[in-house]
Amino acid sequence: VKRLYIVGTGPGAAEHLSPAARVALESCTDLVGYGLYTDLLGDISTGKNLHTSPLGQETERARLALELAASGRCVGLVSSGDAGIYAMATLVFELLDREAKAAWQCVEITLVPGITAAQAAASRVGAPLAHDFCAISLSDLLTPWETIEKRLTAAAEADFVLALYNPISSKRRWQLPRALQILSQHRAPQTPVVIARNVTRADESILVTSLAEVDAENVDMLSVVLIGNRETRCVGPWVYTPRGYAAKEPQH
Amino acid sequence: VKRLYIVGTGPGAAEHLSPAARVALESCTDLVGYGLYTDLLGDISTGKNLHTSPLGQETERARLALELAASGRCVGLVSSGDAGIYAMATLVFELLDREAKAAWQCVEITLVPGITAAQAAASRVGAPLAHDFCAISLSDLLTPWETIEKRLTAAAEADFVLALYNPISSKRRWQLPRALQILSQHRAPQTPVVIARNVTRADESILVTSLAEVDAENVDMLSVVLIGNRETRCVGPWVYTPRGYAAKEPQH
Repeated sequence: VKRLYIVGTGPGAAEHLSPAARVALESCTDLVGYGLYTDLLGDISTGKNLHTSPLGQETERARLALELAASGRCVGLVSSGDAGIYAMATLVFELLDREAKAAWQCVEITLVPGITAAQAAASRVGAPLAHDFCAISLSDLLTPWETIEKRLTAAAEADFVLALYNPISSKRRWQLPRALQILSQHRAPQTPVVIARNVTRADESILVTSLAEVDAENVDMLSVVLIGNRETRCVGPWVYTPRGYAAKEPQH
Repeated sequence: VKRLYIVGTGPGAAEHLSPAARVALESCTDLVGYGLYTDLLGDISTGKNLHTSPLGQETERARLALELAASGRCVGLVSSGDAGIYAMATLVFELLDREAKAAWQCVEITLVPGITAAQAAASRVGAPLAHDFCAISLSDLLTPWETIEKRLTAAAEADFVLALYNPISSKRRWQLPRALQILSQHRAPQTPVVIARNVTRADESILVTSLAEVDAENVDMLSVVLIGNRETRCVGPWVYTPRGYAAKEPQH
């Protein structure tokens, strides 16, 4: 069997790596991934052929994973978080679709889901994602900013909780301030905002602030930003979004 | 220490229960949850005091968990999926906020995230959630239908991938057909739709269909429904959403 596992390893800490992900990765001869993420695997990567490459070479990494699997290796393509959410899985299917190499057709693909950054962040502060929410990437490298801004506006108007991925990078500085400006037109200044950086990793930092007080300087490319909806509230150190808009008790 | 763990146990199969969730639950003297979900825990629940209650008594369950913890028990409040996404966690904070009983203040709360149904569903079919997406619950028991419909329309217009939770129940029959009708006004008939029922459990079923062909009769309250955006495509048996709208290669 020519096998490719596409594995989400969760936010970072080994305690959030699922048994399914561990078993899949341990069965591999070869692991393909961004260096930082394979480093986080610790003992699992011992004795395996590691194929690491820098950020920005995602398509090449997906192609290498397919080629290695087609050549008979048992391959694990590793993403942090969930491999299916702003991550590597889709690139494999895009290659299968666009390039459709005959040798790739016999590769058996299995995907293993993982905890994504927004979930890990939410778990540190309470239950901000407890009602309808959107995940939006602020990276305009592959998506026109007009599309992103349309989504931010739609999400703001329709009162979704937001999880902003790729909020900022060394080259993309104005997108997060602009997103916060759009949100501020539709939400109160005291709306809770959570900045979660490197959640579950050694240098984790979590900041609970508000739309009025949030400072984009506290955000970097290893952060995810959560923004509450009109109902999201704080109680003590916690942030939560009530499960409904009606004041009544649930009736099922 | 008076301790309450709020734990997401993932979609069902033990292989998706994180080590963090397992360790937390094993340390508990008492587990509180809906019967089906505690059943899925298998050996972890052996020897523990199980407090199960039927669907619809979520607030009572959260209150019981707080009371038990305040009385000195080590309590695990169990949700399937992610306890922070359409689940039990927010009810605990709502009680702390509204009722603010003095005895509850000394309870130390720890949340453990879990794989939510949309992620497990996505992992079975490819990478449908690979670009901006919304999670929307179709339950109008606690949220006015006008709010839900506004969100469906906003998500449809702004071209989000959708994950529909609580799509249907024995008493709520027209909401899913109405949601699909709204989506059909903004998306092509061939837009991929995934109906995932009981994902990772013994009687899992996964159906890949399209907006034109989807039949709400195939959906029940144990299902999650994923609906692609305008870019979502099929390749062989797989469904994926490309990571961007531009045809160029990524540049970071």
